[in-house]
Amino acid sequence: MVLYKKISIIGLGLIGSSLARGIKEKNLCEKLVGFDSGPDSQIPIINLNIVDLLELDLVSAVKGADLVILATPVGAYSEIVEKIGSHLKNGATLTDTGSIKEAVFGMLTPHVGDEIHIIPGHPVAGTEQSGPEAGFASLFHDRWAILTPLKTIDSDALANLTKFWQQLGSNVEIMDASHHDKVLAITSHVPHLIAYNIVGTARDLEEVTKSEVIKFSAGGFRDFTRIAASNPTMWRDVFLNNKDAVLEMLGRFSEDLTALQRAIRWGDGEALYDMFEKTRRIRKQIIDAGQEDDVADFGRHQDD
Amino acid sequence: MVLYKKISIIGLGLIGSSLARGIKEKNLCEKLVGFDSGPDSQIPIINLNIVDLLELDLVSAVKGADLVILATPVGAYSEIVEKIGSHLKNGATLTDTGSIKEAVFGMLTPHVGDEIHIIPGHPVAGTEQSGPEAGFASLFHDRWAILTPLKTIDSDALANLTKFWQQLGSNVEIMDASHHDKVLAITSHVPHLIAYNIVGTARDLEEVTKSEVIKFSAGGFRDFTRIAASNPTMWRDVFLNNKDAVLEMLGRFSEDLTALQRAIRWGDGEALYDMFEKTRRIRKQIIDAGQEDDVADFGRHQDD
Repeated sequence: MVLYKKISIIGLGLIGSSLARGIKEKNLCEKLVGFDSGPDSQIPIINLNIVDLLELDLVSAVKGADLVILATPVGAYSEIVEKIGSHLKNGATLTDTGSIKEAVFGMLTPHVGDEIHIIPGHPVAGTEQSGPEAGFASLFHDRWAILTPLKTIDSDALANLTKFWQQLGSNVEIMDASHHDKVLAITSHVPHLIAYNIVGTARDLEEVTKSEVIKFSAGGFRDFTRIAASNPTMWRDVFLNNKDAVLEMLGRFSEDLTALQRAIRWGDGEALYDMFEKTRRIRKQIIDAGQEDDVADFGRHQDD
Repeated sequence: MVLYKKISIIGLGLIGSSLARGIKEKNLCEKLVGFDSGPDSQIPIINLNIVDLLELDLVSAVKGADLVILATPVGAYSEIVEKIGSHLKNGATLTDTGSIKEAVFGMLTPHVGDEIHIIPGHPVAGTEQSGPEAGFASLFHDRWAILTPLKTIDSDALANLTKFWQQLGSNVEIMDASHHDKVLAITSHVPHLIAYNIVGTARDLEEVTKSEVIKFSAGGFRDFTRIAASNPTMWRDVFLNNKDAVLEMLGRFSEDLTALQRAIRWGDGEALYDMFEKTRRIRKQIIDAGQEDDVADFGRHQDD
């Protein structure tokens, strides 16, 4: 028996289309409806055959759905929920996949009645690619899905959404929304920001040409270009909606960087060595925790 | 006919042992001698059978060699060259593999006679792993080897070392040492520094536990832990010896980061989007230039 008879996914980019593929692969519903406002996405979605029905009308897309998943950039939520809020099925669960969580409640609750179970969610998974073609069913395997419900949430609704993510291969963690935003600020948002930033700094140099930056990128730079190739709309919305936590973590990052800069200026080799030695271990722990493949250089030389 | 009858490699870590493997695989000399001062490395080097002879005496290791390659951390060069300088074969070439180049001349020339061809070199290749077991022959395939000779260099000596790197699969670029140090500051040194730094910042947080950082690292953080797992001695020496270029690039990086921070604080979504959109293209150019594999997420999901 399926947990949700009818599921609707709003936004079929990397995350939404991966969800659609995973749901179909595991037969997690009887009817899967998709909606995507991007005219460039609609033909690929139909050709990929990843939903039972691609609705071109947003309100029709959610009607009668037992689970509605928002998988658009977070900045689009308010407008979407304003339109669909009063058309959601009684007792339906409304969730999302955005990288920020505290601001989400404020976007959803004004437009949704008490009979709807709002459970904000965030699968900590992704690639640097975007769009329906970029998705794949195994994206969520062995990754964490974080759910940030209010304490008053219906326990059955929460149990079902937890099972849903587990069926997609994820581990589930329940967390307070504001704590989620701090954890993700340091593990995801600030890393993306500094990756975008170093790529921008390199692009703007006068003394080093862009072709030199590209040619010699194997010295480390190319690693950063991966996450700096992520969806710009999604990331703009993340930073606009997790301002406090990002600014706090960024302040700490800059403070620490200033200390390293000072150690370089004054030739303090011992301080540099101590710092570089300590950070080494954390990668091993990430590999041991199953959150990274145990191969050198991201497996880049596998084909040689 | 080989370019060098006898080659000596001083330091058989990741880079030196990869060189040894490549030289043996392509039969680039008649006799390959290795030296490594690390007691933990000597047994593995013998077991790996990657050199014809592992010399335990530094001076003996370079005697009669036509090419001597320093592949230790840069900070060890002065002491090594002080010992071997007067024992090098007349007409031999002395090169290295360090990530900084301008300071290298100052380390080598005081101890080496005019009859030795000093050609500092830097293969822009590596992984985050260290030691003789971490090396492999294809490490230099399709990567760039930068040589930074003085203008007065013997043209035959330079042509031979160029061919040597090409035989190992590399492209060769001749560059001014001080320009090299600027290019690598932005493409390698500052990226490593900020990777070390973000890992350090994450480790030191009070509000977010280390286990949370590890669990949710797939949001972007884990990418940075790779280069932050690199050899701490090597990187200490890089920063101590490329101070000016690193501090200059770091100044620009911090300036740009402050501008992004300000855009977040003031909610300037347009500035953020513009920045994130521009950086996206550079990854495609790196892939097109053959300096990165064309797979999403570093190929992490290939096994799923």
